[in-house]
Amino acid sequence: MRTLTVNLAERSYPIYIGSQLYTRDELFEEDLRSNKVVVVTNEVVAPLYLPALRARLQAKGVQCVEIVLPDGEGSKSWSTLNTIFDALLSNRCERKTPLIALGGGVIGDLTGFAAATYQRGVPFIQIPTTLLSQVDSAVGGKTAINHPMGKNMIGAFYQPQRVLADIDTLRTLPQRELAAGLAEVIKYGFIRDATFLTWLEDHIDPLNALEPESLAFAVERSCWNKAQVVGEDERETAGRALLNFGHTFGHAIEAGMGYGVWLHGEAVAAGMVMAARLSQKLGFITQHEVQRLVDILQRAKLPVAAPALGVERYLEYMGHDKKVQAGRVHFILLRSLGEAFMTNTYEEAALHEVLRTPDLLA
Amino acid sequence: MRTLTVNLAERSYPIYIGSQLYTRDELFEEDLRSNKVVVVTNEVVAPLYLPALRARLQAKGVQCVEIVLPDGEGSKSWSTLNTIFDALLSNRCERKTPLIALGGGVIGDLTGFAAATYQRGVPFIQIPTTLLSQVDSAVGGKTAINHPMGKNMIGAFYQPQRVLADIDTLRTLPQRELAAGLAEVIKYGFIRDATFLTWLEDHIDPLNALEPESLAFAVERSCWNKAQVVGEDERETAGRALLNFGHTFGHAIEAGMGYGVWLHGEAVAAGMVMAARLSQKLGFITQHEVQRLVDILQRAKLPVAAPALGVERYLEYMGHDKKVQAGRVHFILLRSLGEAFMTNTYEEAALHEVLRTPDLLA
Repeated sequence: MRTLTVNLAERSYPIYIGSQLYTRDELFEEDLRSNKVVVVTNEVVAPLYLPALRARLQAKGVQCVEIVLPDGEGSKSWSTLNTIFDALLSNRCERKTPLIALGGGVIGDLTGFAAATYQRGVPFIQIPTTLLSQVDSAVGGKTAINHPMGKNMIGAFYQPQRVLADIDTLRTLPQRELAAGLAEVIKYGFIRDATFLTWLEDHIDPLNALEPESLAFAVERSCWNKAQVVGEDERETAGRALLNFGHTFGHAIEAGMGYGVWLHGEAVAAGMVMAARLSQKLGFITQHEVQRLVDILQRAKLPVAAPALGVERYLEYMGHDKKVQAGRVHFILLRSLGEAFMTNTYEEAALHEVLRTPDLLA
Repeated sequence: MRTLTVNLAERSYPIYIGSQLYTRDELFEEDLRSNKVVVVTNEVVAPLYLPALRARLQAKGVQCVEIVLPDGEGSKSWSTLNTIFDALLSNRCERKTPLIALGGGVIGDLTGFAAATYQRGVPFIQIPTTLLSQVDSAVGGKTAINHPMGKNMIGAFYQPQRVLADIDTLRTLPQRELAAGLAEVIKYGFIRDATFLTWLEDHIDPLNALEPESLAFAVERSCWNKAQVVGEDERETAGRALLNFGHTFGHAIEAGMGYGVWLHGEAVAAGMVMAARLSQKLGFITQHEVQRLVDILQRAKLPVAAPALGVERYLEYMGHDKKVQAGRVHFILLRSLGEAFMTNTYEEAALHEVLRTPDLLA
């Protein structure tokens, strides 16, 4: 088992990465001091991992309240959040009752926001079961639900007590979702870790094949990168925004196609290509460097050509992005491979060219 | 103008207390760096104070987005919160757009929760216009909405950038609401400030008559007490709970009678009498000391006899109180006048006797 710490003063917490983490009682010890634990999960994950978790908790005499939600992004909604609150109140959950998120990013974001706001905050544990959530959404304390007018518009910064990333759960992951997770893994290489990028170019095939050692290293190195960034800028006033490389375009793709049509990681992959092309048009990186991004994403079986929504719709969707300040969209661009920066100073013409031809790759 | 600071490290903020605070540009300076400000208020407060605030903002070239909600506790709901989010998104409000709460506790709690969760947190300014909100809810960062199964069940700890308590606004306050505010003022005397209690016994008549010097002192001393407690225990793990003296019973009264029938401060007044009677039955204070509480509350024109909901219903409503830990209700009791403490160790019989005869005064 590998252990990392997210350093946030009194809100610091550990991330455990390994196999069969459920079997380790000590990882649950804190919760077991409570006589009741709430597990929030979905209909796909529940049959796979809930029985083992429930058995472990019940063996300790802990009541396990189970909230099983429909699968999919649609659950990141007001009404599902309210379903959770109703269940918490009906089961008389208290301020010290822990909420465990067992599932992917949707379950983690939603459960985290419920934990942040139920009785103004209850303990929260993440057990991410997808690669995307293990390397990204489960780390860093961003929680949210969607609003019809924008993704993740309502939420809170709320840190978990700890994160258990069990790589065994990735074996049951559909190929498309594995690839979507790899998009964020690859992102860390491009924005801040050139060494990792080279390692990824050498190990993308074993990762596709779920080779355990490669997988554990990729999860650990991704979490390490994210923990570093979050430790320096918990509330995204500056550096943390760099993690959104590809996301401004990606959110527009997701919104424009209708949430759920493209997976988040798929939209981020094509969005990173757009951001890299903008970086190239503005003279920061070469066409060859854009091609390196395209190549590794394609080897990871990710889409690299964004849909042609039209310039106006792209601008409209990006206008609601949280990175808008004083009316002008900020972009995360690449200064070089392994170094990202944020700017709102760019030629509109270059942006419009990228938006007009989002399916061009260089 | 009096100025106090709530000390919370990087979340510290000032409270300004005085007359005509609107006319002081410097109090708004930070917001005026934004080109847009959102004012959330209600239909009663808007005609009284919104025009002056709007004029001041517009004179500085700041766009003023106005959200005017129905008056009353009913607005602390999911649906009203969603109304605010819809307006923020429709007006393309960004992460740096400040939200100003102009009104009493309902507007402050609701707007604060919206500010805490819109795009995971935007700047927030409190302009409390009732005595209750000036001395209590606007200070300390508790924000919330109600759930059909309990008051303030969904919320966040979220500190404002600053609080402007303008005592001129108290002149338009209905007598009943003034009294409701005095309940919380009197509470500070009983739980932690015996000197202030004596001062209040001497000045309750000028306070009833809105004499400005007495009023400003009472607001300042109340805020000082609250700021001290909150500074030591922001997230209510221990000491802050003492501020809830009378509130466990009070919340049960509010819920049992239907929210809005009793004002919060009225329910707290009768709840404090119940808590004092429980303290007396458990041997901590004398009957004479309970009588001092009853006397000053009556002089402040507050109800002191709680409704006979029945023991079962009281217990049921108190079971949903956030101060429940491990299934047992915690109470804030008086060890003496000026010193409160929290306990879950008490004779059930004494509690039941108080619940059975909630309208007895000693």
